[in-house]
Amino acid sequence: MSKRNYSVFIDHVGTFSDRYCAAYSEKPFTIAEKIERISSIPLLTGVDLNMTDDYTLAKDELTELLKNSRLKVNSVMVDSTAKRIYKQGAFSSRDKDVRAQIVAESKAAMDFAASIGCNLFAIWPGQDGYDYHFQADYETERRLFGECLKELSAYRPDMQIALEYKPKEPRCHCYIDTMAGTLLMIEKLGLDNVGIAMDYGHSFFSGENPAEAVALLHMYGGKLLAIHMNDNYGSWDDDMIAGSINTIPYLEFIYWLRKTGYTGAITFDQFPYREESRDAVAESAAWFDWLESKIDAADPDEIEAVLAKKDGVAASRLMRKILC
Amino acid sequence: MSKRNYSVFIDHVGTFSDRYCAAYSEKPFTIAEKIERISSIPLLTGVDLNMTDDYTLAKDELTELLKNSRLKVNSVMVDSTAKRIYKQGAFSSRDKDVRAQIVAESKAAMDFAASIGCNLFAIWPGQDGYDYHFQADYETERRLFGECLKELSAYRPDMQIALEYKPKEPRCHCYIDTMAGTLLMIEKLGLDNVGIAMDYGHSFFSGENPAEAVALLHMYGGKLLAIHMNDNYGSWDDDMIAGSINTIPYLEFIYWLRKTGYTGAITFDQFPYREESRDAVAESAAWFDWLESKIDAADPDEIEAVLAKKDGVAASRLMRKILC
Amino acid sequence: MSKRNYSVFIDHVGTFSDRYCAAYSEKPFTIAEKIERISSIPLLTGVDLNMTDDYTLAKDELTELLKNSRLKVNSVMVDSTAKRIYKQGAFSSRDKDVRAQIVAESKAAMDFAASIGCNLFAIWPGQDGYDYHFQADYETERRLFGECLKELSAYRPDMQIALEYKPKEPRCHCYIDTMAGTLLMIEKLGLDNVGIAMDYGHSFFSGENPAEAVALLHMYGGKLLAIHMNDNYGSWDDDMIAGSINTIPYLEFIYWLRKTGYTGAITFDQFPYREESRDAVAESAAWFDWLESKIDAADPDEIEAVLAKKDGVAASRLMRKILC
Amino acid sequence: MSKRNYSVFIDHVGTFSDRYCAAYSEKPFTIAEKIERISSIPLLTGVDLNMTDDYTLAKDELTELLKNSRLKVNSVMVDSTAKRIYKQGAFSSRDKDVRAQIVAESKAAMDFAASIGCNLFAIWPGQDGYDYHFQADYETERRLFGECLKELSAYRPDMQIALEYKPKEPRCHCYIDTMAGTLLMIEKLGLDNVGIAMDYGHSFFSGENPAEAVALLHMYGGKLLAIHMNDNYGSWDDDMIAGSINTIPYLEFIYWLRKTGYTGAITFDQFPYREESRDAVAESAAWFDWLESKIDAADPDEIEAVLAKKDGVAASRLMRKILC
Repeated sequence: MSKRNYSVFIDHVGTFSDRYCAAYSEKPFTIAEKIERISSIPLLTGVDLNMTDDYTLAKDELTELLKNSRLKVNSVMVDSTAKRIYKQGAFSSRDKDVRAQIVAESKAAMDFAASIGCNLFAIWPGQDGYDYHFQADYETERRLFGECLKELSAYRPDMQIALEYKPKEPRCHCYIDTMAGTLLMIEKLGLDNVGIAMDYGHSFFSGENPAEAVALLHMYGGKLLAIHMNDNYGSWDDDMIAGSINTIPYLEFIYWLRKTGYTGAITFDQFPYREESRDAVAESAAWFDWLESKIDAADPDEIEAVLAKKDGVAASRLMRKILC
Repeated sequence: MSKRNYSVFIDHVGTFSDRYCAAYSEKPFTIAEKIERISSIPLLTGVDLNMTDDYTLAKDELTELLKNSRLKVNSVMVDSTAKRIYKQGAFSSRDKDVRAQIVAESKAAMDFAASIGCNLFAIWPGQDGYDYHFQADYETERRLFGECLKELSAYRPDMQIALEYKPKEPRCHCYIDTMAGTLLMIEKLGLDNVGIAMDYGHSFFSGENPAEAVALLHMYGGKLLAIHMNDNYGSWDDDMIAGSINTIPYLEFIYWLRKTGYTGAITFDQFPYREESRDAVAESAAWFDWLESKIDAADPDEIEAVLAKKDGVAASRLMRKILC
Repeated sequence: MSKRNYSVFIDHVGTFSDRYCAAYSEKPFTIAEKIERISSIPLLTGVDLNMTDDYTLAKDELTELLKNSRLKVNSVMVDSTAKRIYKQGAFSSRDKDVRAQIVAESKAAMDFAASIGCNLFAIWPGQDGYDYHFQADYETERRLFGECLKELSAYRPDMQIALEYKPKEPRCHCYIDTMAGTLLMIEKLGLDNVGIAMDYGHSFFSGENPAEAVALLHMYGGKLLAIHMNDNYGSWDDDMIAGSINTIPYLEFIYWLRKTGYTGAITFDQFPYREESRDAVAESAAWFDWLESKIDAADPDEIEAVLAKKDGVAASRLMRKILC
Repeated sequence: MSKRNYSVFIDHVGTFSDRYCAAYSEKPFTIAEKIERISSIPLLTGVDLNMTDDYTLAKDELTELLKNSRLKVNSVMVDSTAKRIYKQGAFSSRDKDVRAQIVAESKAAMDFAASIGCNLFAIWPGQDGYDYHFQADYETERRLFGECLKELSAYRPDMQIALEYKPKEPRCHCYIDTMAGTLLMIEKLGLDNVGIAMDYGHSFFSGENPAEAVALLHMYGGKLLAIHMNDNYGSWDDDMIAGSINTIPYLEFIYWLRKTGYTGAITFDQFPYREESRDAVAESAAWFDWLESKIDAADPDEIEAVLAKKDGVAASRLMRKILC
């Protein structure tokens, strides 16, 4: 049996908006309430922090609340998406003042992470990309991105830096878009303490088979530093309860996580706009735990024998044996 | 040459947010400023109104501003998407109080439309749908939707009611989803003053060929009451500047609008999150006008001869002749 | 517990080709071998016939073989896709001789069906559609299609005619494309003995939720005459072993089949290019039977209560209860 | 003005089949007829050869025919897709005899290329991938692929080897799937004479912006060795007449080809199942030449200024200036 280590982004037990509805819930929760809500969820052992202004301005309170909770901080993320100043890119902005700002905010977030005993720093560069044809110089902007990353990598060699890839949204095209593209960039930059945060939903809706992406990452020596879980219908980042749509693809994903030795946390990262968000996380943990128990019960040797056989019918029989 | 009649939804010369960034611009525009911004755009002759609370609370001011502008009101839409109360559906809500509220707000919007000399009322039921498997009774909810529609149809037989379809977003699955599905519902309900508002982008990203959807609508006697224009990459409602991505599909669409006798307005309905929104509308009008001029210059008899020939090479030659 | 009635298209225990590889297997099976192969599959009780030339030329042999087997013929389909003459459409061809040929072949297939005691005739009009913009007159071609259908409907009022919809392939756009579009056409033509053959994979990759399509069909009085099963990754008609990819969507689909009273067969319709095709069908039957057993064990009242509640978390809990 | 250098795969002026229809045309063309057909197309200067058995068995005739034609051989490809033996992978097969066979056939194709004065060898490994979850050991199979590639790279250092990527079809998942994934593999293997053949349609339907893929390839020092052109609707490899659907995306693609210094051929690679295939190639050349002329007429400094501005409205204005 594998050790379960489930976490959630702090705001994902909160309230949500979209481009049409500014507030799906009447009243936001306080930071203290969110910590308490997470602590109340069975199976949850950790929390991930996205340092939007709300949290940056409340670092002391946050530190205190975390110290008094049973939750371990799994990662700290810098916010490069919610602020208007980054709307045409943060790390890849053509404006050096904008880049200076995101670099400064990233360093501050890394320092805060270190101060609370967390050595995993995460970046999801949602605004770094473009929308229109003939709108961007792809080489220049990617080079600028790389330079910021180098600076951050050198700033704290004690910190692991996880890049979260996503092919689109909020931009129509994002630069940190796929597993392979991100690994290639890290490889070319030659940065030892930079790795990947893999969001299952991002991988899935971009056409990757997430299980294969895990294998690829392992094969090419990339560091898989974090897993974000949610579910979707395959064409968009629907960010639904993890396990509520896909079953077999999750089983293969979990198998490859184990086969390649991933020991980090599973962080739930979903947008339950219309649901009680705490209960939605509890559901995700229950689904994932059940799926893990199915792999616990499977025989790895038998699985390996089927993988070596390369036969669709044998694969189908195996999947029925694991699931049914 | 066809008469050009371009319009825009009033808020689409305003400012925008998405699920990550609450305000891409520093300061919203006033209603007066929006009317003025639209009036300043070359080729624009109309405006469409979506009656969110901002406008409902300012009906008198809005009426006065419109009277003093050169703009004709093309349509009035009820807002069934921005209010939290409708999050699990407005017209199809299982809660009769919720349905009563949207029906009352719809009637008020229809009355307001009539008061300003507009006889086109529009509904985009964005929240009427579902997200999860096993979350909804599709028959019951669709039946409730139909009952509300019947009540509105009877309330003002002098008003044309346009249903805008979209397969998803904000719900993972919306009930008013496709051209054919919407026509079928209207047909079964037998409502003479209900027709279709076709959003080009919704049609395109759902896999329809919009030109064919126009033909289908004409063939089955459906009323094409409104056209909303924007552009996208084919897999999501990107709501970009109309004409900035697709060219040939637009030309065929315009041809079929003319062939089937559509004489209504072309309303721009786009989300330029990061752009000067007024200028983005001016761009759409310039693109569309250029595309219309290409069809002006084409020979309808020659086009019809090619359509009758059913040959891909002949179609390619024709398209080059129209465009190049 | 529901009665299981599984069938398979006769050629789908045979051999396959695609546009690159003309023969994935060394040697095709004879008709007798195919009948025997199907008879050997546990749970299979029926067979569906697609009347390509191979079968049309061997009607007597086929009749005899079927008589001596334990298999019931579930449906007979006319082949309108494999013959080069139909490449620009069969029922919607602009060439009246081509239409006359497909109508004649359809009548012959209906007569053959009657002769072997089968009253379900099926049409999958794969070539009726178009590829290029400006290649087709959508209204004229759809009208021609409707005229052929009227003639077939009148020819044998004792026969049920099932139209199988698919949005694309082999054409980039097919006319009989979606559940709603097909129902709308049947409705407008007013043909009592015409209904729908629903291919799960076609529905799924076109963006429909198949469970909802079943509900829609029931609500609008359409006749669901046949179900074809296979699985895919959501963006193309991969025609894989039924149940090998999707789990929860199948469970909801089966629930709605029962709720709406479908009592027809489940026909497997898949393309195991590289697999032992008989074994691939056995796998599909095993998957489907297991999924049916999960719905057997569920409490319909509990499911109905959740559907009425319209809550994502409640739906998730229910799905875990059914599956886990 | 850029030098135009158009080519076509020899079989793409031939006849076609798909999984339903074994022969869309009555009679195949001979090799001599195909060479003659290509020679008759305005603007075409080259031919690409895919060494299926038909050509391997006729090397002498082919050599002679080419010598007497005005066509330059642009590339020679080994066939790893049409033969049944490769159905579970050629270069990545778990069977060492199968790998030995594809390596031997590849070496023979390279030698043939050298013998006719062509130093560009191409591989499109269509069968190297998988269909089902739990069907393949992704690391092992990719490693085997890499070993074959190393052997071929060493066999003829005088030959450039172009890998053509495609995310799916005929497999549901292919290993050589994206620009970044392929570059990453080449990088990790450290093979100097291996680069990329980019099929526009493969790139486009996989969600890449082909113009950005060209930039990425340039930035990371990858060799862009070949361009294959065709068009599609964005969700599948429709392989249509190049330029018949997309316009603006092609313009940006051509701009980046020039900006990054690509000087190789443009090879048309399309499947006109129902069209006169020679005429379909002539159409592609005419479209592409017109699009190139639009970029000829544009001002590169103006384009660069817009790319540096990162503004959607400015991009739209520029695109209108280039196209209209």
